[in-house]
Amino acid sequence: MLRATQALAHLDLVRPTLLLDAARVRRNIDRMARKAGAAGVRFRPHFKTHQSAAIGEWFRSVGVDAITVSSFDMGRYFQQHGWSDITVAFPLNVREMDAVHQLAAQATLGVLVDSDAAVEVIESHLRAPVNVWIKIDVGARRSGVAWTDPDAVLSLARRLLTTQHAHFVGLLTHAGHSYDAGDRAGVAAIHAESLLRMREVRTRLADAGVAARISIGDTPGCSIADDFGGVDEMRPGNFVFYDLVQADLGACDAADVAIALACPVVGKHPDRNEIVLYGGAVHLSKDALHTGGRTLYGCLARWEGSAWTRPEPRAPLVSLSQEHGVVRLDPEDMDGIGVGDLVTVIPVHSCLTSDLFDEYRVLDGSRIARRQSNQTPLDP
Amino acid sequence: MLRATQALAHLDLVRPTLLLDAARVRRNIDRMARKAGAAGVRFRPHFKTHQSAAIGEWFRSVGVDAITVSSFDMGRYFQQHGWSDITVAFPLNVREMDAVHQLAAQATLGVLVDSDAAVEVIESHLRAPVNVWIKIDVGARRSGVAWTDPDAVLSLARRLLTTQHAHFVGLLTHAGHSYDAGDRAGVAAIHAESLLRMREVRTRLADAGVAARISIGDTPGCSIADDFGGVDEMRPGNFVFYDLVQADLGACDAADVAIALACPVVGKHPDRNEIVLYGGAVHLSKDALHTGGRTLYGCLARWEGSAWTRPEPRAPLVSLSQEHGVVRLDPEDMDGIGVGDLVTVIPVHSCLTSDLFDEYRVLDGSRIARRQSNQTPLDP
Repeated sequence: MLRATQALAHLDLVRPTLLLDAARVRRNIDRMARKAGAAGVRFRPHFKTHQSAAIGEWFRSVGVDAITVSSFDMGRYFQQHGWSDITVAFPLNVREMDAVHQLAAQATLGVLVDSDAAVEVIESHLRAPVNVWIKIDVGARRSGVAWTDPDAVLSLARRLLTTQHAHFVGLLTHAGHSYDAGDRAGVAAIHAESLLRMREVRTRLADAGVAARISIGDTPGCSIADDFGGVDEMRPGNFVFYDLVQADLGACDAADVAIALACPVVGKHPDRNEIVLYGGAVHLSKDALHTGGRTLYGCLARWEGSAWTRPEPRAPLVSLSQEHGVVRLDPEDMDGIGVGDLVTVIPVHSCLTSDLFDEYRVLDGSRIARRQSNQTPLDP
Repeated sequence: MLRATQALAHLDLVRPTLLLDAARVRRNIDRMARKAGAAGVRFRPHFKTHQSAAIGEWFRSVGVDAITVSSFDMGRYFQQHGWSDITVAFPLNVREMDAVHQLAAQATLGVLVDSDAAVEVIESHLRAPVNVWIKIDVGARRSGVAWTDPDAVLSLARRLLTTQHAHFVGLLTHAGHSYDAGDRAGVAAIHAESLLRMREVRTRLADAGVAARISIGDTPGCSIADDFGGVDEMRPGNFVFYDLVQADLGACDAADVAIALACPVVGKHPDRNEIVLYGGAVHLSKDALHTGGRTLYGCLARWEGSAWTRPEPRAPLVSLSQEHGVVRLDPEDMDGIGVGDLVTVIPVHSCLTSDLFDEYRVLDGSRIARRQSNQTPLDP
């Protein structure tokens, strides 16, 4: 059923609350760790999705000792929670060289560059040992040196090899265009193509006598593919929770999604088969999934006993304002839900939804703290 | 120019930072307060956009003594900062009756109902004096009793009139469909139609001997219209900052938008006339503006001297991921911007962007704190 009022009664919820199914999170972590192990690829998970020291410990318990983050602030948070090998997988923000030096003094730090301008700043300002990756664009057209320009990559690598404190490690990519691949076959094709392109660039460097590791990152590719030939490291992040986008792509089973937003029902409109939730863009983010000719901002979850089973595509969030969400229901589902009930929304994009909260409420009633972006003071 | 590096040098910015132009905010407040005064309409501004005690004082300085909020948590924040007349303009969340009683003990509290179910809870559980409005749907199809069903409104009003502690005040609406009206003429038409519909419902109540005030709310209508005949109260909120959506509608001048996100440039791709910003969905929200056949997530601002002048439609944010933003530029604008520079993004939806931060950085260098949604502990 869609109504979660009884199942959540022990939590005494009065407002939108981010729920976490700990068993699912641990299963998602375990599955990806085993996959990396079987492929002989170093597992350096991205922690930007959960951003929680406590969930980080669940990764440590399966042998993870190196992580990826997307900002120096996030890196500092995890360094303060005992992580000592951290890659900031974001084009180097040259305005943060103080943060580079601070983090490099306390951890093995990796950074990314994709431009002469950033390498120039490293040449002139780097004062602590840092691993440097060159970001490669294998088709996502966001950041990175285009894979079609291996000479530019070689030129950057050569400069890094002669720069004090810089340690050139290799080539890193994020095939983010896999999110637009439509289905599993599309993701698999992009994954295979990305690996070919990365190996091609590496070959060009090897021919010039420059050794380079390869690091890849996207959750769809890492979830679907089994071939990681030539890859030294993988950095998926979203898989820890998954979400509707990943389920829609086939990167996970719908039942793998490990977070949900519990929302009070504040309105019921039988004339249009809609209910109104206390739960809006400030709780879910405004990310949308465009699928099957529809645009949706989440789906209600079906519940059995004390846990949700899966998102119900026939109960989509069809609109979202600052604090309101509107859900369209099958007429037969309307009877079972009333004002004052609780329902749960499976988010479109778990990274953005979870970043809106400073804690997870576990189904057993416990609470797990997390950092949020943009909290002051950011300086130590 | 689009580059704001020199103009912002005094702020020493290293990461995405929410800027506020205080002169613009005060001008926006003053203009709307004068408009309400000229129309003889009570001004009860919505504080959900700024959520700042300090900015609240700017409203107080122009005579505002009653406010609107969208949650009990937000209401408690402003009550603790000296506000004693607060309407929670959101369908009553019957799971929060403790919060109702708590806030009602400390302030003149207004709440909204739009269902028998909510009125039943008020009848059976209300233990402190509360002003109750009936929410009317004049066409937005989100919350409220349909204006086409005045008998249902009368029935709810009659029940409230005989309920202990409840004080039925009147009819409240938010013509949120004005955001889809396309232009000023469309907004004006929806505004005029909304007023007609609200007066029609009030007439039905008056004929039955039930007096009711009328409260309206949307920023587009309140910004564009001059006729508020029959309206007792207005509750716009977004106008305090405005944003690209409002400018696109014609609800404000593009130069009225009073917040902007300062972002470091971390990548430059002349082959596709794009720059990459440190500034993504966790800093701007993922709300999009669909206009002129394009989808955009913000626009860079043009600067003259020490302030930005207006958003530049030819410098749109064309994609947004968790921490990255990609801006497409005119080729002639590419030369003036490099890695390490600062640029500023005018947001699509200022309510959602500002909710992602816990402070505003004023152009003079000062800082203004604000509350964010979803911060624990929420309980007193």
